Amino acid sequence: MGNKAKQKVLKTLNKGDENDKLSKGFDTFIMALILLNVAAVILETVESIHLRYGDFFDYFEIFSVIVFSIEYLIRVWACTAIEKYRHPVWGRLKYMMSIEAIIDLLAIIPFYLPIVLSNADGRMIRILRLLRLFRLFKLGRYSMAFGLVTDVIRKRKEELVVTLTLLVILLIFASTLMYYIENKPGREGFESIPETMWWGVATLTTVGYGDVYPITPLGKLLGAVIAILGVGLFALPAGIIAAGFESELSVRKKKKKQQNE
Amino acid sequence: MGNKAKQKVLKTLNKGDENDKLSKGFDTFIMALILLNVAAVILETVESIHLRYGDFFDYFEIFSVIVFSIEYLIRVWACTAIEKYRHPVWGRLKYMMSIEAIIDLLAIIPFYLPIVLSNADGRMIRILRLLRLFRLFKLGRYSMAFGLVTDVIRKRKEELVVTLTLLVILLIFASTLMYYIENKPGREGFESIPETMWWGVATLTTVGYGDVYPITPLGKLLGAVIAILGVGLFALPAGIIAAGFESELSVRKKKKKQQNE
Amino acid sequence: MGNKAKQKVLKTLNKGDENDKLSKGFDTFIMALILLNVAAVILETVESIHLRYGDFFDYFEIFSVIVFSIEYLIRVWACTAIEKYRHPVWGRLKYMMSIEAIIDLLAIIPFYLPIVLSNADGRMIRILRLLRLFRLFKLGRYSMAFGLVTDVIRKRKEELVVTLTLLVILLIFASTLMYYIENKPGREGFESIPETMWWGVATLTTVGYGDVYPITPLGKLLGAVIAILGVGLFALPAGIIAAGFESELSVRKKKKKQQNE
Amino acid sequence: MGNKAKQKVLKTLNKGDENDKLSKGFDTFIMALILLNVAAVILETVESIHLRYGDFFDYFEIFSVIVFSIEYLIRVWACTAIEKYRHPVWGRLKYMMSIEAIIDLLAIIPFYLPIVLSNADGRMIRILRLLRLFRLFKLGRYSMAFGLVTDVIRKRKEELVVTLTLLVILLIFASTLMYYIENKPGREGFESIPETMWWGVATLTTVGYGDVYPITPLGKLLGAVIAILGVGLFALPAGIIAAGFESELSVRKKKKKQQNE
Repeated sequence: MGNKAKQKVLKTLNKGDENDKLSKGFDTFIMALILLNVAAVILETVESIHLRYGDFFDYFEIFSVIVFSIEYLIRVWACTAIEKYRHPVWGRLKYMMSIEAIIDLLAIIPFYLPIVLSNADGRMIRILRLLRLFRLFKLGRYSMAFGLVTDVIRKRKEELVVTLTLLVILLIFASTLMYYIENKPGREGFESIPETMWWGVATLTTVGYGDVYPITPLGKLLGAVIAILGVGLFALPAGIIAAGFESELSVRKKKKKQQNE
Repeated sequence: MGNKAKQKVLKTLNKGDENDKLSKGFDTFIMALILLNVAAVILETVESIHLRYGDFFDYFEIFSVIVFSIEYLIRVWACTAIEKYRHPVWGRLKYMMSIEAIIDLLAIIPFYLPIVLSNADGRMIRILRLLRLFRLFKLGRYSMAFGLVTDVIRKRKEELVVTLTLLVILLIFASTLMYYIENKPGREGFESIPETMWWGVATLTTVGYGDVYPITPLGKLLGAVIAILGVGLFALPAGIIAAGFESELSVRKKKKKQQNE
Repeated sequence: MGNKAKQKVLKTLNKGDENDKLSKGFDTFIMALILLNVAAVILETVESIHLRYGDFFDYFEIFSVIVFSIEYLIRVWACTAIEKYRHPVWGRLKYMMSIEAIIDLLAIIPFYLPIVLSNADGRMIRILRLLRLFRLFKLGRYSMAFGLVTDVIRKRKEELVVTLTLLVILLIFASTLMYYIENKPGREGFESIPETMWWGVATLTTVGYGDVYPITPLGKLLGAVIAILGVGLFALPAGIIAAGFESELSVRKKKKKQQNE
Repeated sequence: MGNKAKQKVLKTLNKGDENDKLSKGFDTFIMALILLNVAAVILETVESIHLRYGDFFDYFEIFSVIVFSIEYLIRVWACTAIEKYRHPVWGRLKYMMSIEAIIDLLAIIPFYLPIVLSNADGRMIRILRLLRLFRLFKLGRYSMAFGLVTDVIRKRKEELVVTLTLLVILLIFASTLMYYIENKPGREGFESIPETMWWGVATLTTVGYGDVYPITPLGKLLGAVIAILGVGLFALPAGIIAAGFESELSVRKKKKKQQNE
C-alpha cells in the first residue's frame, strides 16, 4: 500500500476537522472508550459493583485492549508516511520511542504482561492494573487541556522552580523548629523531622487534617507564626500557574479568532 | 383591556425606575416577601421554632403562595403586551416556557402538587418543600448579582471547562494512586477509588475535615506532594472567576457612569 | 485662653510632624499606652498571670483611664479652635458626636459605668471589660492601616455587596440541600438548616474543622461538588479586597513621592 | 602571596562562570555537601536510621565541618583582596561581621562549641544541633531564590507591614470576642485570649485543625462571620508577595535577556 493510503489512515485516526465524518466519528468512539475505561477502573474498585458486574468489566477490558492494540499496530504500520519516521525499520522504532506511542503502549501492556510473566504475583498485578489509568493520557491527542498544562509549566518553569525551592526550604525550617519544640516522648506526629513535615505540609497548604498539631504553648506560638507567614508563600505557585493559564488561554483565543477571520 | 393597560401592569410588576412610586413600592413588597420566605424555609427546620410558630409558618406560606400565584397569573395574562409573546395562546405558552416564568411556577407549584397528588408520600413532600427555596431565584429580577454570575460564567466558559477538566483528571490520578497505597483491610476511607475521592476533594480544596487521611509513610509522602502541587491547580477556577468578576464589574461601572452623564 | 493656645494643644495631641519634639514624644507615649492596654486586656485573661499580677493590672488600668480621660477632656475643651466646632456649647456637642470622640469616650466609659450603675451584675461588667478593647481604635489617629481599610471598603463597596450576596445565596442553597440529604435522626450537625450552615461555612471557606461532615454517599458527592465549585466563589471577596489594597497603596505611594519632590 | 593569587582563590570559591571548570566543579561540590548536610540533619532524627547509620552520620559531620572550616579560613585569609576589606586586621574583622561570613561561621560553630564548653548540657547540645540547619543558608551564594525573597520583602515592606498590622488587629478582635462568648468553665481552648488566638489563627488562615472550634450557637454565628470576612484579609499578604514575585521575576528575566543580547 502506498503512502497516500497510510496518510489517509493516520488522518482518520487523529483529531479530524469538522467536515470529515469518518474521522470525527472515530475520534468520538475512541474518546468515549477512553472515558468508559477510566470509569471502569474507578468503579471496579467498589466491592458491591465488582461482585455484581465483575464479568462485564472483564469483557469490557478485553474489548478495549483489542481496540487499543489494533489502533497501536495501525499507527506503527502507518507512521512511515510521516517524513521523520520514513525508514521502515528505524523510523518505526523512532516512532515507538515517541511520548505519544509510549502512552499508547502503556495503555495496552498491563493486559499482556501477566500472560507473558507467568509467575507475576498479586502485588505485581495490582500495579499493572494501576497502569490502566494511563489510558487517560490518550485523551491528550483530542483535548487541549493536556497541552495547556505542559505549555504553562514550560513557560513558567523558572518561576515555579524558584518558588518550589522556597517552599521546600520553608517546610524544612518550619518542621525542624517544630520538631525541636514538640518532640517529647510519647508524642505522636513529631517523632522525627520527616514525620513533622507531614504536619508542616498540612499546615502550610492550609489543609489542616487535624491528626497532628502542636500542643505546647511555644509550639502553638511558632505554629501560628508559621501559618500566618507561610500560607502566603505556599499560595505562590498557585498564583504563578493561574497567571500563566490566563495569559496562555488569551493568546490561544486570539489565535483562534485570527484563524476564523 | 387594551395593551396599554397590560404594559402598565407589567411595568409596575417589574423593577421600576426611581420615580414610579407604585412600581417601587411593589418591588420592595415582593423582595421582602421573597426574603421572608427564604428565612421561613430556613427557620422552620429548627425544631424549637417549628414547635412554637408552626401555625404561623403555615399561614405565612398560604399568604405567600396566594401572592405569588396572583403575580404569576397576572404576568401570564399581561405577557401578550410584549411583542414576542403577542399571540393569546402560543405567545402565553411561549412565555410560560421562559426561564423567568418557570422560576415563578416552581415557586408556587410545591404548594399545589400535594393537593393534586393525593397519594404523595412523606419523601415526596420533603423534596417539594426543598423546591420552595427556588423562590430565591425570583430575586433575579431585582438583583444584578444573579445576572453577573451568568455573564461571567458564559464569558469564561472555555477557561472554566479546561480547568475543571484538569481538576477532575488530577483528582482521579491522586485518588487512584492513594487508593493503591492506602487500601488495606479494615482501613476506612480508602475502600474504593470513589471513596478515596472524598479524601482527594477534601485535600485538594484544602478543606481537610480530618475524617480521612493517609497513615502509611508512602501515603503521607504522596499526600504531601499532591497537596503542594494540587492546591495550585484547584485555585485556578477561583482565579478565573475572580478575574471575570473584576472585569465584568468594571465594564458595568463604566456603562453606568456614561448613562449618568 | 485664646484660640492660639488651643490650636497648639491640639497640634501636640494629634500626629505631629517630625520636627516638633514635644508632639512626637506625646504621640509615642499615647501609642505605647494603647498597645500596653491591649496587651493588658489580653494577658489579664490568663489565669496564672491574673493571679500574680492582678493588682498591677488594676493600677495600670486606673493610670490609663486617668490619662485617657484627661486627653478626652482637653480635646473637648480645645475643639472649639477648629472652625466647624467653633460654638462653645453646640460645637463641643457636635465634636462629642464625631466618630473620633466617640471612640475616645468608649475607651474610658467602661471604667466609670460600674461606679455609676451600682447594681451592675457580673455579666454587665464582663461586657464592659470587652469594651476596653475599643482603645485599639484610638490608634486610628496615628496609623494609616485603619484609614486604608475604610477607604478600600468604601471604594469597592458595590463589588463586595454583590459577591457577599452571592456567597450568602450559595451558602443557603448548599446548606439546604445538605440538610435534606444528611438530616437523619441521631445525626449531629445537620439538625436544621441554620445548624447545617455551620458545616457550609466551614467547607466553603475551606476551614474544615472536621466537627461536621457528610457521611452518606450522596452527601459526600454533593459536598465534593459544593467544595470544588464554591471555594472559587468564596475566594472572590479576598480577591476584590486584595486588588483594592494594591491600587490604594500604589496611589498613596505616588502621592507621598510627589510630596517629597 | 599577592592579591592576584587571593583573587583567583576567591573566584574559585564563589559562583563561577560556565567556562571556569575548576570553579564550577568546586561550586557543585559545596552545594552537594550542603544539601547532603541538610538531608543528614533531617534523616538523623529518624530513630531507625539513627540507630543503624549513627556512626556514618558522625563521620560525615566531621568531614563536613572540616571542609566548611577550611573554606571559612580561606575566605577570611583571601578577603583582603577585596577593596573594602583591604586592611589585614580591620578588613578581615569587617568581613567576619558581614552576613555572608556570619552564616559561614554559624555553619561550623555548633561543632566546636561543645568542645570549648565542657559543661554543655543536653538541652544546649540539642539547640546547637538545630543551628546546623543554618548551613542551608550557605546556598544563598549559589541560588537566586534567597535573594529574591529578600528583594520582594524589601520592596513591598510598607504593604506587608500595613496588612500584617491589620491581621493582628483582626486576630485580637476575633479572639477577644470569641473568648467572651465561648469561655465557660471546663471548656478547653478558650481559657484565655492568648489560648483563643490559637483558634483564631487556625480559622483565619483556614488551616482548621479541628482541635478547637465554637460550640455555642452564638459562638458559631460569630465564627462563621469571622471566617467569611477574615479569610479575605488573611489572603492579602499572600497576594502582595505573589504580585511582588511576579514583577521581580519579570524584571530579572528582562535583564537576563538584555545581557544575553
